[in-house]
Amino acid sequence: MRTHIKNALIIPMKNDGEFFRGDILIEDGRIAYIGESRDLDADEIVEAGKRIALPAFVNAHTHLAMVLMRNYKDDKENLQEWLSEIFPIEDKLNGDDILKASRLGIAELIKGGTTTFADMYFLAHETAKAVKEAGINASLGLTLFGDEAATEERYAVRFPLMRKEKGDYERIVFNIAAHAIYTTTKESYLKAKEIAEDYDIIVNTHISETRKEVEDCIKDNGTTPLLYLEKIGALKRDNMILAHGVHLTDEELAIVKEYGLSVINNPSSNMKLTSGALDVKKLMEMGINVALGTDGASSNNNLNMLEEMHVAALSASLKALKPMRAYDVLKMATINGAKALHLDDRLGTLEVGKDADIILISTEQENMNPLNDPFSAIVYSASSEDIRTVFSKGRKVLDERRITYADEKKIIEDVNAAWLDILRR
Amino acid sequence: MRTHIKNALIIPMKNDGEFFRGDILIEDGRIAYIGESRDLDADEIVEAGKRIALPAFVNAHTHLAMVLMRNYKDDKENLQEWLSEIFPIEDKLNGDDILKASRLGIAELIKGGTTTFADMYFLAHETAKAVKEAGINASLGLTLFGDEAATEERYAVRFPLMRKEKGDYERIVFNIAAHAIYTTTKESYLKAKEIAEDYDIIVNTHISETRKEVEDCIKDNGTTPLLYLEKIGALKRDNMILAHGVHLTDEELAIVKEYGLSVINNPSSNMKLTSGALDVKKLMEMGINVALGTDGASSNNNLNMLEEMHVAALSASLKALKPMRAYDVLKMATINGAKALHLDDRLGTLEVGKDADIILISTEQENMNPLNDPFSAIVYSASSEDIRTVFSKGRKVLDERRITYADEKKIIEDVNAAWLDILRR
Repeated sequence: MRTHIKNALIIPMKNDGEFFRGDILIEDGRIAYIGESRDLDADEIVEAGKRIALPAFVNAHTHLAMVLMRNYKDDKENLQEWLSEIFPIEDKLNGDDILKASRLGIAELIKGGTTTFADMYFLAHETAKAVKEAGINASLGLTLFGDEAATEERYAVRFPLMRKEKGDYERIVFNIAAHAIYTTTKESYLKAKEIAEDYDIIVNTHISETRKEVEDCIKDNGTTPLLYLEKIGALKRDNMILAHGVHLTDEELAIVKEYGLSVINNPSSNMKLTSGALDVKKLMEMGINVALGTDGASSNNNLNMLEEMHVAALSASLKALKPMRAYDVLKMATINGAKALHLDDRLGTLEVGKDADIILISTEQENMNPLNDPFSAIVYSASSEDIRTVFSKGRKVLDERRITYADEKKIIEDVNAAWLDILRR
Repeated sequence: MRTHIKNALIIPMKNDGEFFRGDILIEDGRIAYIGESRDLDADEIVEAGKRIALPAFVNAHTHLAMVLMRNYKDDKENLQEWLSEIFPIEDKLNGDDILKASRLGIAELIKGGTTTFADMYFLAHETAKAVKEAGINASLGLTLFGDEAATEERYAVRFPLMRKEKGDYERIVFNIAAHAIYTTTKESYLKAKEIAEDYDIIVNTHISETRKEVEDCIKDNGTTPLLYLEKIGALKRDNMILAHGVHLTDEELAIVKEYGLSVINNPSSNMKLTSGALDVKKLMEMGINVALGTDGASSNNNLNMLEEMHVAALSASLKALKPMRAYDVLKMATINGAKALHLDDRLGTLEVGKDADIILISTEQENMNPLNDPFSAIVYSASSEDIRTVFSKGRKVLDERRITYADEKKIIEDVNAAWLDILRR
């Protein structure tokens, strides 16, 4: 199958600030040509004269199946109060709930331009089913929560289920999701590191999300969260992605830099739960790889990466009192996410040989005119309605705002029915 | 003409936290019935079982025709640097540019759920034409900029043009838009107050938007901006709306409260231009009326009030380190805006006798499921695509995302042509 995207305004995200009008040829799911417009032999032609072509987004931190708890017990004072409402619900979730919620979450991700996500949640083998049905990419977490016994049990029981479900579907990779220092023991973090080494995958953790977490860590461990992780020997070069990181100290940022770790910014969740704002400009100037995530839909309250970029730009500009470059925001949402997840060999930019995970953004509506600056237009002016078409590995998963691979109405009905049942359990 | 909206989830914005499932009857542009579902004699029935009915938004601060400069000279360091790029462009604008840009701005407003806006820009009689074409509401500013001679000239020449254009179109009111203390003299502010008194209208001004403005004011006038306006006698009970107000001091907030003035929050613009964040919760707790605006599309960079609510909620929560109530955010965008503009006798809530300015928000897409909390769902989860239908004075101005009263393609083509021409002038 060969698809010819004609005459698009292409932003490859390969060279800083680059855009040009041209064509893309997709062949067998990969980008076979990108450059000036030319005649190309193809089975399908996509006329993209009024479209911007951009790498599909990488949502580098989410808890996908938490779409169930969207807007549930909202307006809580802070993360801790809110978690105390959420944990009892989570105890009631079963595999079927996770599968149905994952299907909805994936459709929502795609409608916001995302084809790759890093997840941290329970029963990830169920989420794997939904990823395969949709035909997108994911880094699915084996989520660790508690002491070594709990970790060993998860590793012995859940990880084989995940590996079995993955089978030969190459587009799923795994991460070891050690939840946070306030829920996961030293032994579990060390085990996470060991498993990650064995399978050459990354560890995914929350860190320094709130002031309270940092204060409690100092009280309990005599030091701040990342210094604690270093002290116990949980860190290794480029082995970990750090979600939130709002309150990382300068000393800790030097460690992030030294180990080549990635920080995942979740600005909507950080603002909504009054956790704070990450100083993205500072981290980027230090050369730290900063990616972007929506966090779960229960603390966002959506999975829309286009909107997350907008909030990220505003939040980071105000934090630094210097404007973010729109292009840097696009990097956070594309190539930086792919790097963080160790998927940049095949995702995150538009270049020959990479997977054809491409979004086409319309410039036809009022909000995109005059266009003037395509980077700013995407970050500040676009809304998800403008994302018309999404390719994942060359296949249209969204076509003129319609999910192609499933019945959206049924996905939504199933989730609402499951949620009502959970509340009754 | 009688329109029956059936079985909607209605949020009237009249009583705190109220919502119910029911019907609305629109008759001759006004709400004739709102309450439980019942049989009603009507010419048109709108089945709204999967829709939320909400008062249309009031965008209480914008510079509509600045859509021309959308994303132009973006990523400037701050307000002053950016204005130095914008002012030379503005010197080149003519009436035809303003008319064309206003048409685009109004279509964009409507697609974000807005049917009423307060404007501060040049050649407002041209914007008035576009308001009448669309059939929406506006408070159009006679914009003052400079000394008394400039003000007298504007008042003598421009105001009659505006009044003539308004004619018997009752849905346009005027405001006297004294730009800011750093562009408008004492005499001009006093003249603004006098004209506003004569016509029983409000004064519309920028105030304490940036630290620099405040510091310069102290240097030049020995006091902070609002104290300066009080000292020169520009204030009167409920005679002024204050855009931005980010750096108003506690002493000044007491004056805002004492005079019953309204503050217009513009969170996207304030963050983007690194001006700061308004402490909305504090102002609301003081009993100050806080409304919401997008500011111009050139510093936002869109006119989408739904998105502005989202940013407003996040920005205010982080500023106060306490979460905003979603319902309070909805108030900012509806009834508080109507109050600020002195239009709450006919707009801002859904109740019998008021104008039928109503939006229908779909709950059918993934991002709105499960719904759980309708206030949070609108503020945090919805995107403009979910705003399916917009009524203004009972007439559908948006019908399933399509502008009804004009050719959208032509509106957009005209603006792009005008903008290219402006750049060549």
